[in-house]
Amino acid sequence: MSNTVYLDYHTAKPVDPRVLDEMMPWFTERFANPSSLHRDGDLATEALEASREKVAQFVNADNDEIIFTSGATESINLAIIGYMMKNRKRGNHLIISEVEHISIHNIAKYLERLGFNVSKVPVDQYGRVKLSKLERRVTDKTILISIQYANNEIGTVQNIQEIGEFANERGIAFHTDAVAAEGLVPINVERDNINLMSISSNDIYGPRGVGALVMRKRYRVNPVMIGGGQERGLRSGSEDIPGIVGMAKAAEIMQSEMDDEVRRFKAWRDRLIREVLSIIPDAHLNGHPTDRLASNAHFRFEGVEGEALLLSFKDKGISVSTGSACSSKTLEPSHTLISTGLLHEEAHDSLQLTIGRFTKNEDIDTVLKALPEIVGKLREMSPIYKGR
Amino acid sequence: MSNTVYLDYHTAKPVDPRVLDEMMPWFTERFANPSSLHRDGDLATEALEASREKVAQFVNADNDEIIFTSGATESINLAIIGYMMKNRKRGNHLIISEVEHISIHNIAKYLERLGFNVSKVPVDQYGRVKLSKLERRVTDKTILISIQYANNEIGTVQNIQEIGEFANERGIAFHTDAVAAEGLVPINVERDNINLMSISSNDIYGPRGVGALVMRKRYRVNPVMIGGGQERGLRSGSEDIPGIVGMAKAAEIMQSEMDDEVRRFKAWRDRLIREVLSIIPDAHLNGHPTDRLASNAHFRFEGVEGEALLLSFKDKGISVSTGSACSSKTLEPSHTLISTGLLHEEAHDSLQLTIGRFTKNEDIDTVLKALPEIVGKLREMSPIYKGR
Repeated sequence: MSNTVYLDYHTAKPVDPRVLDEMMPWFTERFANPSSLHRDGDLATEALEASREKVAQFVNADNDEIIFTSGATESINLAIIGYMMKNRKRGNHLIISEVEHISIHNIAKYLERLGFNVSKVPVDQYGRVKLSKLERRVTDKTILISIQYANNEIGTVQNIQEIGEFANERGIAFHTDAVAAEGLVPINVERDNINLMSISSNDIYGPRGVGALVMRKRYRVNPVMIGGGQERGLRSGSEDIPGIVGMAKAAEIMQSEMDDEVRRFKAWRDRLIREVLSIIPDAHLNGHPTDRLASNAHFRFEGVEGEALLLSFKDKGISVSTGSACSSKTLEPSHTLISTGLLHEEAHDSLQLTIGRFTKNEDIDTVLKALPEIVGKLREMSPIYKGR
Repeated sequence: MSNTVYLDYHTAKPVDPRVLDEMMPWFTERFANPSSLHRDGDLATEALEASREKVAQFVNADNDEIIFTSGATESINLAIIGYMMKNRKRGNHLIISEVEHISIHNIAKYLERLGFNVSKVPVDQYGRVKLSKLERRVTDKTILISIQYANNEIGTVQNIQEIGEFANERGIAFHTDAVAAEGLVPINVERDNINLMSISSNDIYGPRGVGALVMRKRYRVNPVMIGGGQERGLRSGSEDIPGIVGMAKAAEIMQSEMDDEVRRFKAWRDRLIREVLSIIPDAHLNGHPTDRLASNAHFRFEGVEGEALLLSFKDKGISVSTGSACSSKTLEPSHTLISTGLLHEEAHDSLQLTIGRFTKNEDIDTVLKALPEIVGKLREMSPIYKGR
């Protein structure tokens, strides 16, 4: 991807070369199974536990609160399905927000088919959950609230500490999908009143195929996969030591560099927002104007189809996105944008630009140069757009 | 592990350096999500589908019969739990063998708690399933038979073609856990009458954290994880492209080199068996004398605890195993050995030596030199062993 501009960091991130270096010996030299009783096995066990400690420190949890999984999807399954199954005697009601990732909406449907009840809290025009609305969804059967830390499309950051406190005061467990937020917002499960949290490795520039469930003490879940009993029976299957070592290194790097990185991203994000809104007529910002991820600029251009926009960018070797990766190959409009009050046709007019660790100043220049031309051309061809 | 001898290939394998080379660009350069509609996303999609083709060829399946998973454990969950759930209206009875991997025994217990019935077929002294015994377990509610291709401990290879035919003739689906066999026995799902098959990447010198379910046409399973709907809804979560590319390369290499490799392994295995049984008194071979994996030599030494043996080898920097990786940290005797008719104390007296791609002639020499001395010393200290 050397000669392309990539502003699609929310969808996929490269592995940091320093992470890859750390992983390398575990592929070919120190490859043993941590269950083995020989020296090579001991080395693998030590690496596994040292990695657990690094990931725990990254989110201010204890080592034994980290369960390594095959990625965010598995963590979320374990957290939500696992918690509802384990605690079904205490209640059968789950609350999620309208703007959760598609995987959580699909889990909600699955749980409903199993006889659970699920309520969805609406969000405001910026995609934020209001406590007053959440309050009206709580019943005496509610045992779990799952609200994302930040939105993976429009970048709006929730007031997680307040939502966590709200849940915990009522004796309701609180899970947060922190995949979009990790590495961009300082996460502290203790301060944020988080009981269960799903994180992924790739979202902090670690390898794919690895993630973690942070499960605080006193909280228990059922496994979703059955097997040899690794990870305290919650994640069976031989541990992916290179992947886990990579995730830990990624967490360590992120912890020391996040402040600088976020400062750099914010300057670019603010420049993107400022210039796009001033240069291009009938352009709007999606998501919260200030409480948004430092990496995220999400626009709507009246009369311009997001997909056409994306293909025009593709022709110029610029990789951007219209929304969530999972729904990008369907023609469905983003449920997140619909939830913030946009019409279907408005939701289709979106462009998501997301900044990452290897973004360069010239990438921002290139996009800012290309965008007005592309939007202009597409509007000329549009039968709908009238302009001002 | 450069200065140690490693004869524990059934437990964990290194990634072949050629596989790692193939994976490298997908970590840092071509890292996009296959769901993305830009050029980088197209590259990822192409790699995903090319990998699917290579894995399909390796087992003689069609491309669309390969579902990539996070590893063998997930494949097995998807195959067995997924099939039983999907087809429960047709019957609620599952048959497995006594010598299946611990994860399958745990899945059986899980299914029993959900109200399914599970029968276990016994095996003969070599660990082989007999059709006459299998026949007696079949009921009109039997919808799935799951028998391993080869045993992960004692290396006995089942007559899979015959078992598959037996199942298919009766309209019963046949799943095989081919993890121990892959790369050591030519697998052909068409010839072998296999309907569902679980394979892992690491067992053919690919990376950990990847595997596949081979699901033949007309066979359907329920997902065990819910999410964004990747892999036709059966394996949600962004695809681990470096891992999948690695598994495919591993399959490709294996396909072209397996014959030579197996020939080499067999010579070492036969030398190990011949010399150990002739040099060491009261030594026995576990598993089938000839229908066994080319990589596997599994012994029992009267009066010598496997764990003590293993620790003596550890002191000499030699990595070996007493049995399955998952149970090696418990004090339970191997359920496989018990199933072949050994007493608990006999099952504890075992040593598993497994050969792999990077085994050298000197490794075999070293072990053959160390073994008589270690066994002799341990027997001297043994209060039970009387010798002949």
